[in-house]
Amino acid sequence: MSGNSMGLLFSVTSFGESHGPGIGCVVDGCPPGLELSEADIQAELDRRKPGTSRHVTQRREPDTVEILSGVYEGKTTGTPIALLIRNTDQRSKDYGNIADTFRPGHADYTYWHKYGIRDPRGGGRSSARETAVRVAAGAIAKKWLREKFGIVIRGHMTQIGAVEIPFQSWNVVNDNPFFAADASKVDELEAYMDSIRKSLDSVGARLRVVAENVPVGWGEPVYDRLDADIAYAMMNINAVKGVEIGAGFGCVTQRGSEHGDELTPQGFASNHAGGVLGGISTGQDIEVSIAIKPTSSIAQPRRSINKAGEPIEMETHGRHDPCVGIRATPIAEAMLALVLIDHALRHRAQCGDVHVDTPRIPGRIG
Amino acid sequence: MSGNSMGLLFSVTSFGESHGPGIGCVVDGCPPGLELSEADIQAELDRRKPGTSRHVTQRREPDTVEILSGVYEGKTTGTPIALLIRNTDQRSKDYGNIADTFRPGHADYTYWHKYGIRDPRGGGRSSARETAVRVAAGAIAKKWLREKFGIVIRGHMTQIGAVEIPFQSWNVVNDNPFFAADASKVDELEAYMDSIRKSLDSVGARLRVVAENVPVGWGEPVYDRLDADIAYAMMNINAVKGVEIGAGFGCVTQRGSEHGDELTPQGFASNHAGGVLGGISTGQDIEVSIAIKPTSSIAQPRRSINKAGEPIEMETHGRHDPCVGIRATPIAEAMLALVLIDHALRHRAQCGDVHVDTPRIPGRIG
Amino acid sequence: MSGNSMGLLFSVTSFGESHGPGIGCVVDGCPPGLELSEADIQAELDRRKPGTSRHVTQRREPDTVEILSGVYEGKTTGTPIALLIRNTDQRSKDYGNIADTFRPGHADYTYWHKYGIRDPRGGGRSSARETAVRVAAGAIAKKWLREKFGIVIRGHMTQIGAVEIPFQSWNVVNDNPFFAADASKVDELEAYMDSIRKSLDSVGARLRVVAENVPVGWGEPVYDRLDADIAYAMMNINAVKGVEIGAGFGCVTQRGSEHGDELTPQGFASNHAGGVLGGISTGQDIEVSIAIKPTSSIAQPRRSINKAGEPIEMETHGRHDPCVGIRATPIAEAMLALVLIDHALRHRAQCGDVHVDTPRIPGRIG
Amino acid sequence: MSGNSMGLLFSVTSFGESHGPGIGCVVDGCPPGLELSEADIQAELDRRKPGTSRHVTQRREPDTVEILSGVYEGKTTGTPIALLIRNTDQRSKDYGNIADTFRPGHADYTYWHKYGIRDPRGGGRSSARETAVRVAAGAIAKKWLREKFGIVIRGHMTQIGAVEIPFQSWNVVNDNPFFAADASKVDELEAYMDSIRKSLDSVGARLRVVAENVPVGWGEPVYDRLDADIAYAMMNINAVKGVEIGAGFGCVTQRGSEHGDELTPQGFASNHAGGVLGGISTGQDIEVSIAIKPTSSIAQPRRSINKAGEPIEMETHGRHDPCVGIRATPIAEAMLALVLIDHALRHRAQCGDVHVDTPRIPGRIG
Repeated sequence: MSGNSMGLLFSVTSFGESHGPGIGCVVDGCPPGLELSEADIQAELDRRKPGTSRHVTQRREPDTVEILSGVYEGKTTGTPIALLIRNTDQRSKDYGNIADTFRPGHADYTYWHKYGIRDPRGGGRSSARETAVRVAAGAIAKKWLREKFGIVIRGHMTQIGAVEIPFQSWNVVNDNPFFAADASKVDELEAYMDSIRKSLDSVGARLRVVAENVPVGWGEPVYDRLDADIAYAMMNINAVKGVEIGAGFGCVTQRGSEHGDELTPQGFASNHAGGVLGGISTGQDIEVSIAIKPTSSIAQPRRSINKAGEPIEMETHGRHDPCVGIRATPIAEAMLALVLIDHALRHRAQCGDVHVDTPRIPGRIG
Repeated sequence: MSGNSMGLLFSVTSFGESHGPGIGCVVDGCPPGLELSEADIQAELDRRKPGTSRHVTQRREPDTVEILSGVYEGKTTGTPIALLIRNTDQRSKDYGNIADTFRPGHADYTYWHKYGIRDPRGGGRSSARETAVRVAAGAIAKKWLREKFGIVIRGHMTQIGAVEIPFQSWNVVNDNPFFAADASKVDELEAYMDSIRKSLDSVGARLRVVAENVPVGWGEPVYDRLDADIAYAMMNINAVKGVEIGAGFGCVTQRGSEHGDELTPQGFASNHAGGVLGGISTGQDIEVSIAIKPTSSIAQPRRSINKAGEPIEMETHGRHDPCVGIRATPIAEAMLALVLIDHALRHRAQCGDVHVDTPRIPGRIG
Repeated sequence: MSGNSMGLLFSVTSFGESHGPGIGCVVDGCPPGLELSEADIQAELDRRKPGTSRHVTQRREPDTVEILSGVYEGKTTGTPIALLIRNTDQRSKDYGNIADTFRPGHADYTYWHKYGIRDPRGGGRSSARETAVRVAAGAIAKKWLREKFGIVIRGHMTQIGAVEIPFQSWNVVNDNPFFAADASKVDELEAYMDSIRKSLDSVGARLRVVAENVPVGWGEPVYDRLDADIAYAMMNINAVKGVEIGAGFGCVTQRGSEHGDELTPQGFASNHAGGVLGGISTGQDIEVSIAIKPTSSIAQPRRSINKAGEPIEMETHGRHDPCVGIRATPIAEAMLALVLIDHALRHRAQCGDVHVDTPRIPGRIG
Repeated sequence: MSGNSMGLLFSVTSFGESHGPGIGCVVDGCPPGLELSEADIQAELDRRKPGTSRHVTQRREPDTVEILSGVYEGKTTGTPIALLIRNTDQRSKDYGNIADTFRPGHADYTYWHKYGIRDPRGGGRSSARETAVRVAAGAIAKKWLREKFGIVIRGHMTQIGAVEIPFQSWNVVNDNPFFAADASKVDELEAYMDSIRKSLDSVGARLRVVAENVPVGWGEPVYDRLDADIAYAMMNINAVKGVEIGAGFGCVTQRGSEHGDELTPQGFASNHAGGVLGGISTGQDIEVSIAIKPTSSIAQPRRSINKAGEPIEMETHGRHDPCVGIRATPIAEAMLALVLIDHALRHRAQCGDVHVDTPRIPGRIG
């Protein structure tokens, strides 16, 4: 595989460029019998859709998904599910001026040297637009995990630039444009993002994703650890520069007497592990945190070079997210779901019939 | 594969338990014609060997490697290179008391529920001892990368618990037991670690790994990104809880005008990207930072449960590293080398004959 | 992967059912810079298209392919090439009567027990219609192999039922509906096939595929041997029951003194090996022969059972090929091309820079 | 992977050369809890061991296997099972004369051009000796399949050179050096093989492998079909030139009315399919037949070339099997077992919880 597929048993093979005919993927390995409609997928797609507020790109893409295969009479058949999203809003002129130059912070320079040819329209394959297909594939994974195991996967923004966003309640996350879990922070965020846009700049973000009700025993022991596959999945999201599981970098200053989560018959006493020990799920919540870099496309002049290697100064205009992190929440949820369903199937293959008398303790006390 | 292999074209398949007959791996895909001897591998193994100072486990393991195949008259033949390290120092009695209990912070509970059976001696498969085979395999990767591309992969400790360790010089890193890049910090670290041991506790650490002279163009665009595979590899190291590329979590508060590395004919003006853009190497240094949790095995009483699910109190005695992070430096270097060689081969397969006239700019200015 | 992808570096992921919205595939790993248009692919698709003569199914499918991604300004970009063929002629009523029964010789019974659900329309996923996407993907592989190495991949029918078809000339193969390499046999075949149809029966076939100008050194030594991957690819074609390389089953009665192909500076003295020794190409022609079973769908009454397990008698009407082997020639060529390009890339990855002074001898003497 | 691993979920990674320190493999993915000892594996190894009769190579190799990992207190733990067979009888002088020449019918020429270096001692990696590790790995697969599903995998010789060997009874197969299922043929075979040896020549063979009690539903629908993976596995055996499933090449002259196996509530009326329809097992016996070429190493003078490309005449002396097919029976059984266990696990992953009310009919009537 050449880097456009992920997953061993529940695999997603992605295709498409930002301004080509369309984007999509083939989902192979979905268990048969799952009720699935385009509406199930569309609901997740709409959460990351551009143009939903003034704080994200104003590009207008309905992102309407078509199921091309693998579903018969409303149920998955166990055969590949192909999903297609046609591109509709393609203002190539916005991008014509960058065909011979390399935008700082973008993949232009690396694609050019790797392939010797690139589709410059909207970043081509390297556009964040590709993440829509992950959300679509993730919607299938999410539904199966929820119906089969009651697993709930949710994310929320914990910081945008200088503004930290405490967790208050999951209930408000989808009611504001920032996926913030604290409604009292929304006004401050609105003002902050407006100032960023006015300064023709962009800013980074940090978000948290949690999976609840994951059974103990998923994940592999040495490589393909559950947390390693999660780190892989998250770092595969455009602009992600850091990944933490559980205590994350906070563990550096912890003592073993603090970090190691104690076990009691009533449940785990804490969750510094973030739900994974020895690469295998513990039954606690899977806790993931990621850092997303500021959008590289800004309207300020920046130094770069052109194909001839000559110095140039460029400003990237067009319709860009001042904070790509904002729309990353549903993407991160989808990636976590894709990792979990793959390991659910892998576990079933090797250890599906294992039984021990030892009771499974709750993920947390009480 | 069931989680004991990594790498698509340069693959390592690992085996072995801490107290079984031995540990080892099969390295498949090494290009033919590389000069290779057991001494090349032993040199790296000795860097992570236990018992080298009072600050690491006092377990005595010579960790002597035997090449079982794939090398003829001192050169690799392109066939699988099997490496075997026999276990010698196995004090199973140290571990007999934990067969029916689950140590907090360890994989005991997860292995038990996953497999329904586990080898409790020294943690069996989940022992950090397994990382020796990665160092051995990584030594082969390192040598090929150095001879073929002049790539240099080095790591150093940046923090142990509360003590931050600034970077002064690579020259001193291998001359102190902490892989510290600042000799003036060694006394403080000695005292700090002694106090940790006296308090029967352990502590976390943070380290940095750098790969220099990586050509532009390695890595895949969507999944299997170079940074994603690096995150995967690092998170596969026992006890790692966080991974950063370049600016890492620091990018959250950065502006796009600061983070996006400008290009000039003389080179990149900065390296917040950490050497990867769009999943593909830029020609800048690959910059990775990881967080390692404190050793879970400590001699203080901790709450846990036994196989019957009953509450117990346990102290983990035996010979443990008070800071597992200390010996993680050569392991992290090895994992980075394994990712890089795999992508070197993948790049050669798909784009080996690509040529563009555009000059490759230096990784950094001047 | 769940059995809908093939190829490690040049991978094809197939999707679609006979009577769903469409069929297609994602081709990942195609080297960048290959000139490619829909016309290149259509030309191969038209060779297996139904309805081209009275000896194949009269189903009318234009099989028009659309390139959805991976091609920019007429050249491949190194990113995934997604191909879509919309289904147009779907007479589902032809198949309605078989939803609750299992056709003898078909996958109905096995799909039902494997998945617990199946799309019965036209055989759903198990329809030979899926092979169109392999021909489409194979067209890309064929073009790259031809342009890069001058490799020519051709097939012809060697036997239909009782009628053996000697090889006279490649020139006539595409000028008759049977892919026969002997024009003088065409009348006999016409009459033979007419008689088969009149008897409401079907018949098997045997065909030969040859790849010329394959360089020495492609293929892996133990598993993933070139001939093993060819056998895998051929047996993956619907209805194939046997595969031979070179002398094939003829080698059973050969002596070593006859079978072992002698080498001379002027070339190999014979090609009983079929172009592969020790799993690796020799530089001789790759010689493959396959057996294709008679079409299982015939209009004669046959015994079977229904979903309740009760005995039934059924005739399969609809528009079926009286000899599925006839349209298998372009499919077999495509499969061989897909195996060869994958190994071309794998060879380049591991041994791309190997040089020996030993001259490469011609595939055949003179 | 570079061609030394097979299997997606139950994977075998093989290593070793004929005259190196040893050969072996890592078996990854074996379900936990299987009782396993070295004796279980040794029993199968002894069936292919050289030197057991005058009709096979007189090389003396005890082929003693050591389990290095993955088994604790007599049971598999779900972690990798590493197997090592040390080489003992290495008469390198037998082979010294061929280091600079290419033996006809051997991999010498292809290895040399592929890798630019080769271990000529006993054929190095291309030696049939490597097949011992497949038998060892297959022994584990066989045991699990037998204990879990009652699957019985057996093979017997059906033809050696000109001598066809009818099937009489499984009971005699392991009581004669030819794995013949007809004791009355043994004298004729003894005389025939003696004559072959006297003539300093070798001969081909054909054998049949059968798997009984395979449940319906194993195998993938498009690629990775059960029969395709079987063809792949068999063609991966040194010297195999042809593979048939069920009717095999016999289907070419069959009519659809004959070939398509009818279904009745009492069972299938025939088994021309060989136990696979649409790539998925039917519940009938899996029927496989393979052709094995005559040994290439014969003591007659043959034409070849040397490294300089100059013509030479060579005789291959040493201790060779006059018919490599004879010892291929346990190897073919092992390869079939490895394919079946992999698909058993793959089926469990995707469709493990599928249930239909339709009764499963017997593999054969009565």
